[in-house]
Amino acid sequence: MEPKRITIIGIGLIGGSLALQLYEKGMASKIIGVDANPEHAKKAKELKLVDEVKELDEAIKQSDVIIIAIPVDKMIGLLPAILDKVDGQIVVDVGSTKQQILDEVHDHPRRGRYVSTHPMWGTEYSGPEAAVKGAFENTAVVICNEEESDKDALEWVKNMYKTIGMHLLNMNAVDHDVHTAYISHISHITSFALANTVLEKEKEEDAIFELASAGFASTVRLAKSNPAMWVPIFMQNRENILDVLNEHISQLRKFKACLEKENYEYLEELIVNANKIKKIIK
Amino acid sequence: MEPKRITIIGIGLIGGSLALQLYEKGMASKIIGVDANPEHAKKAKELKLVDEVKELDEAIKQSDVIIIAIPVDKMIGLLPAILDKVDGQIVVDVGSTKQQILDEVHDHPRRGRYVSTHPMWGTEYSGPEAAVKGAFENTAVVICNEEESDKDALEWVKNMYKTIGMHLLNMNAVDHDVHTAYISHISHITSFALANTVLEKEKEEDAIFELASAGFASTVRLAKSNPAMWVPIFMQNRENILDVLNEHISQLRKFKACLEKENYEYLEELIVNANKIKKIIK
Repeated sequence: MEPKRITIIGIGLIGGSLALQLYEKGMASKIIGVDANPEHAKKAKELKLVDEVKELDEAIKQSDVIIIAIPVDKMIGLLPAILDKVDGQIVVDVGSTKQQILDEVHDHPRRGRYVSTHPMWGTEYSGPEAAVKGAFENTAVVICNEEESDKDALEWVKNMYKTIGMHLLNMNAVDHDVHTAYISHISHITSFALANTVLEKEKEEDAIFELASAGFASTVRLAKSNPAMWVPIFMQNRENILDVLNEHISQLRKFKACLEKENYEYLEELIVNANKIKKIIK
Repeated sequence: MEPKRITIIGIGLIGGSLALQLYEKGMASKIIGVDANPEHAKKAKELKLVDEVKELDEAIKQSDVIIIAIPVDKMIGLLPAILDKVDGQIVVDVGSTKQQILDEVHDHPRRGRYVSTHPMWGTEYSGPEAAVKGAFENTAVVICNEEESDKDALEWVKNMYKTIGMHLLNMNAVDHDVHTAYISHISHITSFALANTVLEKEKEEDAIFELASAGFASTVRLAKSNPAMWVPIFMQNRENILDVLNEHISQLRKFKACLEKENYEYLEELIVNANKIKKIIK
């Protein structure tokens, strides 16, 4: 495949890591960075995540592909404005929620140029300095409502993800938002809440600093995640997340009831059931 | 330090990993394994975690040091029986709860031979095949109520932990059980409950298998942990864990209320507060 001129809007963890992979795999003849934060734009250039930094309109004109990697609330405003400006370019987003954004551009005259995707990769860090080499490999990318995209755009985007080592899943936006509530968004809420639980109770103590083990670190690491990214995700996927959160609280209440009633047979059953996750998470 | 003849009772994840470190650091002239499960005993021998397998009484007679690495409910029964049998040997336990076991042997005539410890290391796996090389390094070990131990026993045990790369913390049993409820036990409950939440809702779906990302895996990995180890920990530390669990449910309810009322300013505050965990978990 011919390398393309690629603009990445939002050169942070996801946009920056994607830039590194696109260079690595020879898919980009040039990468132009666009970032609302001048510090991030400067840093991205220094770190060689992009060849140059430009204003949005200029970047669009000089590109074959435009990848949008910004918080999902900003996406809602920006995507239609970008589609207004494109001609034959391919536009891709990598947001963590899909239904609202797809509703937003459903009737746009250039809807076909846009491919809606969600690569299931990330870390708890953010900004250009969080970008890492070799990201995305061996993880899934969801492509939503692909029948609404032009064939050439869809093919190029699919090929891009395959080239950086991802496996493709096709899903409608409604299903995507339900499933990600379960296997991504709730994990962030439980981590944030666990961090707050410990910080609340251990205020006066240094013990936690010294005792915290790998198990705790693993369970709580997502609590470092950036509110600018996550508040908009929770807003846009509010109803699904509330369903999952209610279920999760009711599951925790079962553990609580077991302890209160000293019903250790049922406690063991709950744990044996939870162990079934072994089949899913290697 | 002169290598010693060491018996390890319970040659699983913890006992087996400790055996590997004791060999590696030249602290053991011989390691004898004792295990209630004959399959585990056989496997431990095959994997060279121990030199030989013996019955308890014989192992005690032939040892200078006896390390007990069995579930904490079994410990309550076994530790006093072992103290009945020792003469000058050093006895160490590595259990995750400390108050009940220390109460149990408080007035034992050979109490001094026993050193109560909790190395803050583990994984979600169990059994001799879960034993790994290089375990325990750069993590903390808590020594409880050390003034109740004989000086020679305490010194040897402290040196053993330093030699395998751990840093020592001194704590009374009551404080230990409170702190571990926060920084270890609750993480297991949230992981078990999260696994059950997802398994409950995604029963009919393959999506989770394909979508599950590193973030989810990290949050839920402790849900693979062995009920035979964890039910007794939850029993023995029931009151502290109930306190933490109540606090955790109330923290989750704050996230729920934010979503229900669409109070995104407060949601952001909750996340910003949770981000403070960065100072604790690198």
